[in-house]
Formats: sequence, C-alpha cells, structure tokens
Amino acid sequence: MDFELDRGIAVTPAGPGAFDVVLDPGWVVGGGVNGGYALALLGNAVRAELAEFGTPDPISLSAYFLSPTRPGPGRVQVRRLRTGGRRSTVSVSLVQEQDGNPVERITALATYGDLDSPAADVQRQIPPPELPPVEDCVEARFDSAEARRAAPLLDRFGTRLDPAYSGWAVGKPSGAGVIQGWFRLADERPLDPIALLLVVDALPPASFDLGLPGWAPTLQLTAHVRGRPAPGWARVRHATRNVSAGQFEEDCEVWDSTGRLVAQSRQLALLPRPSSPKVA
Amino acid sequence: MDFELDRGIAVTPAGPGAFDVVLDPGWVVGGGVNGGYALALLGNAVRAELAEFGTPDPISLSAYFLSPTRPGPGRVQVRRLRTGGRRSTVSVSLVQEQDGNPVERITALATYGDLDSPAADVQRQIPPPELPPVEDCVEARFDSAEARRAAPLLDRFGTRLDPAYSGWAVGKPSGAGVIQGWFRLADERPLDPIALLLVVDALPPASFDLGLPGWAPTLQLTAHVRGRPAPGWARVRHATRNVSAGQFEEDCEVWDSTGRLVAQSRQLALLPRPSSPKVA
Repeated sequence: MDFELDRGIAVTPAGPGAFDVVLDPGWVVGGGVNGGYALALLGNAVRAELAEFGTPDPISLSAYFLSPTRPGPGRVQVRRLRTGGRRSTVSVSLVQEQDGNPVERITALATYGDLDSPAADVQRQIPPPELPPVEDCVEARFDSAEARRAAPLLDRFGTRLDPAYSGWAVGKPSGAGVIQGWFRLADERPLDPIALLLVVDALPPASFDLGLPGWAPTLQLTAHVRGRPAPGWARVRHATRNVSAGQFEEDCEVWDSTGRLVAQSRQLALLPRPSSPKVA
Repeated sequence: MDFELDRGIAVTPAGPGAFDVVLDPGWVVGGGVNGGYALALLGNAVRAELAEFGTPDPISLSAYFLSPTRPGPGRVQVRRLRTGGRRSTVSVSLVQEQDGNPVERITALATYGDLDSPAADVQRQIPPPELPPVEDCVEARFDSAEARRAAPLLDRFGTRLDPAYSGWAVGKPSGAGVIQGWFRLADERPLDPIALLLVVDALPPASFDLGLPGWAPTLQLTAHVRGRPAPGWARVRHATRNVSAGQFEEDCEVWDSTGRLVAQSRQLALLPRPSSPKVA
C-alpha cells in the first residue's frame, strides 16, 4: 500500500546519522508545517538510524521547537547517545536552509525500544472518554477552497470531533479547555508507533475551547508511546488545566480502537495573541 | 546565607560552555545521586551559561537519564541552540569519568526565559490538594543510622507526607498511586526556579503507593516551571494513572505557599522489579 504519511516521512541516508528529507506541503497549517508531522518525520529517521539495534519503536521523545518548519527539503541529523541494551537513546535535529544558511528547526531527544517486549500488560490506565458514534461527530474540514489551501493537512486527517467541545467553531467554546474526538488518517493508513507522534499534535489546540482562536506555538512537546495501536479509529483527548503568564500546557491521551491507552503527551505552548484589529 | 543546596549545585567555568561540578554525596539515595538534585545542578550550569541573555529561569527542561550519576566530580557541557530573544534554548549534558573514560550520565534540552516577564497572571490552574497541617503529616526520615547512610538526602529535605497516602511505609499502600505532602528544604533555603527542578523529583515514587517498593529508575523527565515560588512550605503531589509493560508515568505538581501552581512535571519510569528472595 502507498500511503500519504509514508511518502511524507520518507528518509534518504546521507552520511553517518544524516538523512535527507522533504517536508511535504500537504501537511501545512497556516503557513507552517504541522508539528506532529515533523515529529513523525524525525521519529522515522531515528528508527532508520537504529535499525541494527532491535529498538524500532519510540518510547519517549522530547522536542523543542526552535524556528518554524517550512515545506521543502531538510536534513535530519541523528546522534547516538546510548545503544546496545534494551533501549537506545539519541539526539535528533531537523535543519533547513534559509537565506543560504542552515537553521535548526526542531531539536529532540528520544529513547527507543521494542513495544512488544515486554508485552503491554495493562495494570491501570486512564479510561477512554465516552464519545458519540463517529457518524454523530463533527468532521474537521473546511468547505472553502481558500481555507483548504491554508490548512491542507485537514484533508489528510480523518478527525471527528465530539460536538460537546466543538462549539468554538461557531463562537461558542465550552470553556472547559477540552478538545476530543475520533481520529484516523484520511487514507486509512493504519496507526503505528511512528504515526502516534503525529496523532498527539493532530487535533486543534485546547485553547480553542477557551475561546482563544489563533495559532498557539508549541515551545516543547514530550510524547510517551505506551503501546502498539490496534487498527481502527483511535480516540484522542486534549485538555489544558493550567493557563498562566501567556502559556498553557496541553495534555494529550490517545487510545486505540480497543480502548487501550497507547500514547500520552504534554506540550507547553504560547497562548495566541489577541488578533490585531483589522484595518479596512 | 550559606545553604546546602547552593554548595551542592555550585559550578566552576572550565572553558566555552563547560563547567566543573562536584556531585555531593549528601544527595545520594540508595547508592545513586538523586535525579532532582542532578537536574538542579544542570539547571544552575545553564543559568550561568546564559547569564548575558536576560533569561535566568528554567521554563522547560527535558532530561534523559543514560547511566547512574555517582557522587564526585563531573563536567557539565552546555551548547547554545538559540539565544537572543525572550527565550534561550540549550542542550546540556553531565559527564563523569568511569574507569578512565568519560561517560554521559544525563542529557537534556532546556528553554530558559524570565518568569517575571510577563508576570504570572493565573487564568486557570489545578487547585492544590487539601493537606492536614504540617505538624499532622509524616516526616520522611529514617531513625536508624544504617538507613540514614543509605539515603542521606532525606536529611536535606523537609518533607511531610499526607498520612492518607503514607500507609506503604507500614505495608499498607492506599493503592491510589498518589504521594503528596508539604515540602521545604531542611535548612529552609527559599525555593526558587532552580530548586523547583529538585522538588519535582524529591518525594518517594508514586509506585510505593501501589505496593511496589524499590527503586523506580527514571527514563525521562520533563519539568515545566510555571511561576516564581513564594517563600514557605510548598505542596507537592505525585500521581500515576497509567501502568503498563513495566513502565509508569509519574505526574508531579508543585504549588507554592500561596497556593499557586509553580511547577509541573511528568516522568516515565520503570516499575521496580520484584525483590530477589533474600539468602540468609
């Protein structure tokens, strides 16, 4: 099968620990490349770099966003910090050329392992949220051609939002600071541990539900992959509980179609600035 | 004033981005150096390295633990990734010599800023837990000289645990996966943003309250400092909600004496292995 995400995160070896990549314009939102897509791309390069070690799966990845990632070519550099045991740890960064100079976009640390060893026996977990059936949820797409050009990635996501927390789309946020819904990739590529790095940053920011529309730049995101997802619709929940000094944290949990928690993440993001008044 | 923590996290410049340090044996627990103390040490080196940039405070720090930190000398290396704006981002690592070779103990990424700009107006936050008065809580100390030698850091912490979640100490864990209490440093050094990096890993692990005593090695810890703490007793809460495949996450929140949330962290840790049967 040939899926959009696999084309978008393909890596080409380019020397020790180095991989050439192309950030696909199809994963842009509002001029920048979606952070989750960029993390899946970094994650795929790390997976390639560690191929010989029997540690194929991201267990933990912590990314710091240094400058906005742009569509187009880039170079991923992976540096091995510890290999040879049950887990491998690396540093990884994405660099793009800008005005003739290399500029670091994202830098991250990651630990990889094998999610099948030990098998993911679940002793306790946060239960998945009760959601209306997929067909009763809200499809996150734009109808206008202009909006679709600004956020082409929405055509790649099969997000269905819980209507209880979708009122912000019509100016009526719930105020709870929650966004939740069903998620799959539009072309039904099965979710795997690398794709989960995308899923944790695929829904609209929880700040929308606080009545704060606009771009909420991520300063830092740490994802933990806790299990290999079963096929089918995943459930995703974003929530923020601490908003202060122009920043908020966004916690994300992802459950697979069997209801097992397979990923969790926390990001620290900047609150959107109030829109400037428009000059007619 | 001359406080133990300040002596323990002192750094001596040793070349570009490099700092000589001494890991104080007073912060050992069970043979290894406490992770929170090591993070405060790294955080202090970053603060020194960034002195010229007006970004004195840790905002976010993500650490990966590569090998057990030992008491004794070490070298902290800070690499500037982005400086010059309202926030500075660095990578930082702690190296110690072992059998004549340099071995990386901890590697981290961190973003620093100024917690006073913008001022920490709180729009929403997790409320602090209701705790019994300090004098009705359980002091986490050992009486026996042997136990005190194994965990001398407890003499440096002024931890008072909520009795509702301290039953594990007498073989009766609550099963909730919660540890909470009051915290200050024993010599009453005021808490500041650097000390908060210690506080987020200062309580016993939440796994104790699941009836799993023993060392729970941290794979990864990300801390967010959300405000400058007011003087006095802080409240700290650890909780785990997802335990699977031999791993658990531990979320930590810290509130200052005014009840404001000033730090939060999440770590991914390994469940303690069942103790080997003792041979008489």
